[in-house]
Amino acid sequence: MKMTALAGGVGAARLLSGLAGLLSPGELTVIVNTGDDFRYLGLYICPDLDTVVYTLAGVADPKTGWGIRADTLHCLKRLSDLQCETWFRLGDRDLATHIFRTHRLRCGDSLTGVTRMICLRSGIQVAVLPMTDSEVPTLVHTDEETLEFQDYFVRRQCAPHVRGFQYLGIETACPAPGVLDAILNADAVVLCPSNPYVSIGPILAVPGIRDALRATRAVVLAVSPIVAGKALKGPAAAMMRQLGEQSCATTVARLYRDFLDIFVLDRRDESLVGPVRSLGLTVHAVETVMDSPSARLALAGSLLRMLP
Amino acid sequence: MKMTALAGGVGAARLLSGLAGLLSPGELTVIVNTGDDFRYLGLYICPDLDTVVYTLAGVADPKTGWGIRADTLHCLKRLSDLQCETWFRLGDRDLATHIFRTHRLRCGDSLTGVTRMICLRSGIQVAVLPMTDSEVPTLVHTDEETLEFQDYFVRRQCAPHVRGFQYLGIETACPAPGVLDAILNADAVVLCPSNPYVSIGPILAVPGIRDALRATRAVVLAVSPIVAGKALKGPAAAMMRQLGEQSCATTVARLYRDFLDIFVLDRRDESLVGPVRSLGLTVHAVETVMDSPSARLALAGSLLRMLP
Repeated sequence: MKMTALAGGVGAARLLSGLAGLLSPGELTVIVNTGDDFRYLGLYICPDLDTVVYTLAGVADPKTGWGIRADTLHCLKRLSDLQCETWFRLGDRDLATHIFRTHRLRCGDSLTGVTRMICLRSGIQVAVLPMTDSEVPTLVHTDEETLEFQDYFVRRQCAPHVRGFQYLGIETACPAPGVLDAILNADAVVLCPSNPYVSIGPILAVPGIRDALRATRAVVLAVSPIVAGKALKGPAAAMMRQLGEQSCATTVARLYRDFLDIFVLDRRDESLVGPVRSLGLTVHAVETVMDSPSARLALAGSLLRMLP
Repeated sequence: MKMTALAGGVGAARLLSGLAGLLSPGELTVIVNTGDDFRYLGLYICPDLDTVVYTLAGVADPKTGWGIRADTLHCLKRLSDLQCETWFRLGDRDLATHIFRTHRLRCGDSLTGVTRMICLRSGIQVAVLPMTDSEVPTLVHTDEETLEFQDYFVRRQCAPHVRGFQYLGIETACPAPGVLDAILNADAVVLCPSNPYVSIGPILAVPGIRDALRATRAVVLAVSPIVAGKALKGPAAAMMRQLGEQSCATTVARLYRDFLDIFVLDRRDESLVGPVRSLGLTVHAVETVMDSPSARLALAGSLLRMLP
């Protein structure tokens, strides 16, 4: 059984920890969004990669889902004293990852290589791949200004109304080594319950990845990040409305229909099974809210049982 | 009254805090050794500058004399988990300085400019200048190998026997802006009780600085870092012996005699007053051991009273 997952941040990481609990080492590969990577005081920060790695390593902060459990903010406090912007919360332990990654990248390692080192040294047996080794910052066009993603998401707290997205430089980016293989040679590909515009969207926009999803013989599943019209976390539902779409699971399914086999929506959205099925997809309604470790395992188990 | 001090790390910083306590804002300028600056995981670290700044800001660790009081090591611990070398103790609060400085240097600021920013934002009114904006790493030639200074000092704990020193690139380095002025236009210049080879030596080796000390009309004083044949801190005395010199205050005085007016040695070395006087210097024997804040003020007061 070879499974490959496409992942954003917190929601994805929760499902991945469930899948990692049920699959054997070597069975799971994760392709992670890097569109919201950014630089802070020269440090190269990859929020989604770190969330996935910390969660799989069992050190993620259980409350927020991101950052490291019980981390302190001593360095950030002093950076604030030095009059640096500190709207992005960087814990002291978390900083080690950014210092290490930034240094290795400057030494010429690829993001793929650095991520592999971090995983190995964190005791993670899941293969975690960035979607690309190129820098492809997601820009959010809003009614006020165009913002880099973290600027929109953290500093502006998603306040401006979204008009569209741009994955800067994506046309010339290549999938990271192993990414296309992982899609083409999987038995199943899962799109985690992540934001379709700013988490899964950038991954699908890397040249070759969407084609690989269309071409693979793997069963391709997606789990809706929208439950009862709302995003469990983050701005996905608000973005849909601001873009003139309905904020519902059907909107997500429509975005993936060209390569999707199975759409998994929440049992609270049973009424959408018909509409999604009419897109030509197999639909399952299950419990998708992962509010406990056992709920993560339960959803992972549900997905595995949907496979032939 | 304009006073300029030449400074290494901990010993210098203690005297400087005494002087800063007695002089008015604007009266004291410090020129700091940067020969032991080094890079760690891409971070640009200036141990002597930081020790001086932390001490003057009142945040230095009172036990070690370096680093920030009550700092934690969470980031370093995780860097160790990531299999990075961690022989240089970097506290979480301390790291903020290195991250900030490294970033500003990469943005094109000079070390002088960054140091000024750090001082301003730390509430320090003393002018703190690096000796140069160029990188001039001190190399320690030993009986085993040639080591960068921190490698010799921290990682190897001064174990190899010293054969000589090299201030790499010093021939083409320039004094930092303000340095020559501060020497030429001072009423008094004080060489702090710092290691003559690896703290004061690099400063004197920057082209133009020794000439300025010879040319200035300021009274030039030096405080011996050797008391009763021993260095109060660090390897100065051992270095002297390994280089075939006597480990005593007289050896220090001899290194500075071409530009020195007054040599200050410890009252425990009263017997050396004659030998040092015969070098053509005015000599004072006072209490130089700064084992308390009041002792710092007392030594500073002694020095000020020696001035005409």
